Amino acid sequence: MARLVEVAHFLGAELQGNGDHQVDGLATLASAGPKHISFLANSKYTHQLASCNAAAVLLQPHQAHLFRGNKILLDNPYLGYARLSTWFAEPFVYCGMASSAQIDPTAQIASGVNVSPGVVIGPSVCIEAGVNIGPNCVIGAHSVLGYGTQLEANVTLYHHVRLGQRNLVHASAVLGSDGFGFAKEAHQWIKIEQLGGVVTGDDVEIGAGTTIDRGALDDTYIGHGVKLDNQVQIAHNVVIGDHTAIAGCTAIAGSTKIGKHCTIAGACGIVGHLTLADNVHITAMSLVTHSIERSGTYSSGTGLQQNSQWRRNAVRFKQLEQLAKRIKMLEQQLQR
Amino acid sequence: MARLVEVAHFLGAELQGNGDHQVDGLATLASAGPKHISFLANSKYTHQLASCNAAAVLLQPHQAHLFRGNKILLDNPYLGYARLSTWFAEPFVYCGMASSAQIDPTAQIASGVNVSPGVVIGPSVCIEAGVNIGPNCVIGAHSVLGYGTQLEANVTLYHHVRLGQRNLVHASAVLGSDGFGFAKEAHQWIKIEQLGGVVTGDDVEIGAGTTIDRGALDDTYIGHGVKLDNQVQIAHNVVIGDHTAIAGCTAIAGSTKIGKHCTIAGACGIVGHLTLADNVHITAMSLVTHSIERSGTYSSGTGLQQNSQWRRNAVRFKQLEQLAKRIKMLEQQLQR
Amino acid sequence: MARLVEVAHFLGAELQGNGDHQVDGLATLASAGPKHISFLANSKYTHQLASCNAAAVLLQPHQAHLFRGNKILLDNPYLGYARLSTWFAEPFVYCGMASSAQIDPTAQIASGVNVSPGVVIGPSVCIEAGVNIGPNCVIGAHSVLGYGTQLEANVTLYHHVRLGQRNLVHASAVLGSDGFGFAKEAHQWIKIEQLGGVVTGDDVEIGAGTTIDRGALDDTYIGHGVKLDNQVQIAHNVVIGDHTAIAGCTAIAGSTKIGKHCTIAGACGIVGHLTLADNVHITAMSLVTHSIERSGTYSSGTGLQQNSQWRRNAVRFKQLEQLAKRIKMLEQQLQR
Repeated sequence: MARLVEVAHFLGAELQGNGDHQVDGLATLASAGPKHISFLANSKYTHQLASCNAAAVLLQPHQAHLFRGNKILLDNPYLGYARLSTWFAEPFVYCGMASSAQIDPTAQIASGVNVSPGVVIGPSVCIEAGVNIGPNCVIGAHSVLGYGTQLEANVTLYHHVRLGQRNLVHASAVLGSDGFGFAKEAHQWIKIEQLGGVVTGDDVEIGAGTTIDRGALDDTYIGHGVKLDNQVQIAHNVVIGDHTAIAGCTAIAGSTKIGKHCTIAGACGIVGHLTLADNVHITAMSLVTHSIERSGTYSSGTGLQQNSQWRRNAVRFKQLEQLAKRIKMLEQQLQR
Repeated sequence: MARLVEVAHFLGAELQGNGDHQVDGLATLASAGPKHISFLANSKYTHQLASCNAAAVLLQPHQAHLFRGNKILLDNPYLGYARLSTWFAEPFVYCGMASSAQIDPTAQIASGVNVSPGVVIGPSVCIEAGVNIGPNCVIGAHSVLGYGTQLEANVTLYHHVRLGQRNLVHASAVLGSDGFGFAKEAHQWIKIEQLGGVVTGDDVEIGAGTTIDRGALDDTYIGHGVKLDNQVQIAHNVVIGDHTAIAGCTAIAGSTKIGKHCTIAGACGIVGHLTLADNVHITAMSLVTHSIERSGTYSSGTGLQQNSQWRRNAVRFKQLEQLAKRIKMLEQQLQR
Repeated sequence: MARLVEVAHFLGAELQGNGDHQVDGLATLASAGPKHISFLANSKYTHQLASCNAAAVLLQPHQAHLFRGNKILLDNPYLGYARLSTWFAEPFVYCGMASSAQIDPTAQIASGVNVSPGVVIGPSVCIEAGVNIGPNCVIGAHSVLGYGTQLEANVTLYHHVRLGQRNLVHASAVLGSDGFGFAKEAHQWIKIEQLGGVVTGDDVEIGAGTTIDRGALDDTYIGHGVKLDNQVQIAHNVVIGDHTAIAGCTAIAGSTKIGKHCTIAGACGIVGHLTLADNVHITAMSLVTHSIERSGTYSSGTGLQQNSQWRRNAVRFKQLEQLAKRIKMLEQQLQR
């Protein structure tokens, strides 16, 4: 429970209306009730303001006239909503050290760290203050969890995985599994032991089921402020630049270097040993097969069609080289 | 062990042959032995009936003459096989409450629920009768498991995940992880706490390694009878209509609404904020970038070719706009 | 710590230089220090030899003159590096049987097997000598782990999963989950219980988060020496031929048979009920929709472009059939 005047003060925003009005949650314009704060972040929802029952709405100053009720005015309502959302986050459940956790006696664990039931912590692990470890997580030897980092349930860190401060790692993520490295000998694959580790910067978020392989010799590196969605695959020795965001199910092959401030949409594939510049944006389900030297937006693939039409076009795709030659020939015939 | 007369009675089917013949399993036509029941569901296997050793074969009435041995006649042999398969399913292994399970004292657990070793159940969880929970599962605060639901091993449910009746959730699936939501402030990503939950209907099956994010404010919703294969990714606030089936490795981005009775093949990508009508079918590895208003089958991508040919065509794809203009110019020249 | 003469002897290689020089690790040419062994496997790094500080470099005999320091000469330096990497692999952490492991009394476990904390082993499981089982793994009834097999953390094997010798299964992998099999009855999906198992050959490696479904009636089969990267999806009744390697995030649909010695790159989709010959190679993110009878390299998809150009070409792709007809018409007009 908070009063609107406190909300406005927290956001450094201007309040127009009843500062004593009590609020206890956040909601969309369509579903907000009289104790909810809402926000307008996309102009296509402007019409919902007329019938919105929210206690107050976060608006840009020039939008103030669009809502009759209490309003909280600030330059970036979506950012205000993000900030305010932290007030309502679920607290971490387990306090202290669960008796069923198995902790190697050589592990160093700061006081106040919360370790849930079923957690297994290996030798020489170092866990800094403010860390929360969810149920049934496994942390391999010599790994480090920086200040304020949180692991959700069933996370696996192999040995020599070093997470920065305030990382959030979602359930079933795996960091430090072996890179996919083999040498060939007489038609058989000979394993190359993966001797590097994984290092992350500060403020990294790693989605559920995401896998990050350890490096072959050097470390795999995830920069500061990087956000990885669910089921992303990061191969060995990949480097992700600071503040890059990668959406779900994208796969990045070995030794590729992604720049800073990039956004990679979902279900993309990026082949190995490439370099992508800073501020590169890749649209959904694109395949990146060469390095990208200039910032910009890049795509591959084809658009969706009804299957019957698509089939005919897909057949023609297989004849494209031939079609292009026929066009060339027609041009030559006409010139003569 | 059962007699053929019991099998036929269970299926409401007509038995032709020896009703006292004992059977103890199901098998394909090719591998069936004299105590196995088999079935013909695809006409391309009809020739295997001649040498089939099965105790009995499920056939459509008009196919009865194709097999010399015992036959069980019904309209849909494949459905009969599905029904009969439940006779031979492996039973759940753990009975009662494992002593190593860690259960919050505020959790409400119906009598007869089976909880395996290593399970962790948080505060205010509600578990209805007939539920089976596999080893090392984690169930977050305030979550609900409806009657007859089963979690296989290493499943993670975050807080406020509410499953309907008779759900089956496979190993390493994650429900309720944070949606991928961030606001931008001066080139950094500010986390938006994900305050909604996940709700599923009845008779939902969720594959191994599948991830379903909680909603940002409202819930992510999976309808009745929905079947999700392995490694499917469902982003925050997605809605999946009743009886829709989604094959492996498909990713659906945030706030998209899929209709009822749809089938989405494997490895598809569906971008965010779209609406797909009922009875829409998407073929494998298609990218859906716009809403679909009419039922039907849709596709994108190109067909497989030998790499040497494909390379030439892929180069031409990059010139398609130019090729189309050259065709237009040729047409204009000819008209003159 | 080892002397160079021992390294050369282990590799069956010729040493040129100081055999008493001590080494304690492997490193790339660029980062090697005076106690590291390095190697030249790709000619594009040849220039790094001039400033390399390694104790010794693995080189082909004809490259010996390129490095001033100690050299170890052999035909395949990359293979030598692979072999040598095993000297520096991290040892398995847990010795013996953890007291928190829950082992069914009917399980047969060879002496010397290492079982980590939180492991759950079901009835009638058989575990051969030399097996290591990581923390919080779950092994279902009647499963078999062959000699020398290792499971990393949080792995799930369902019932009737039979692994060969020297398998390595990475964290959060799932073997034996139900195949995605349903029969339709009046718009609802009726589950087909999956009664087959999963069988793997010897020397198989399975990546983190990879899922392999059990067969519907017969087994899903992974051949000897097969290497599966992270987040690969193998559907029910798939057969993978010996020594085939499949990179991350590739999905293979039900009943497809892949040949021996194939390489499937990352993020590919292979639809169900196909047969791929031996020695087939599929490039990244290709969709395979028909069987492949001849060895060779195959591809689908389109190349990456700047989004503004790609959009125009993608629009033209939807008109390809029409463009081809216009070319045909132009040709006919010119012939007249």
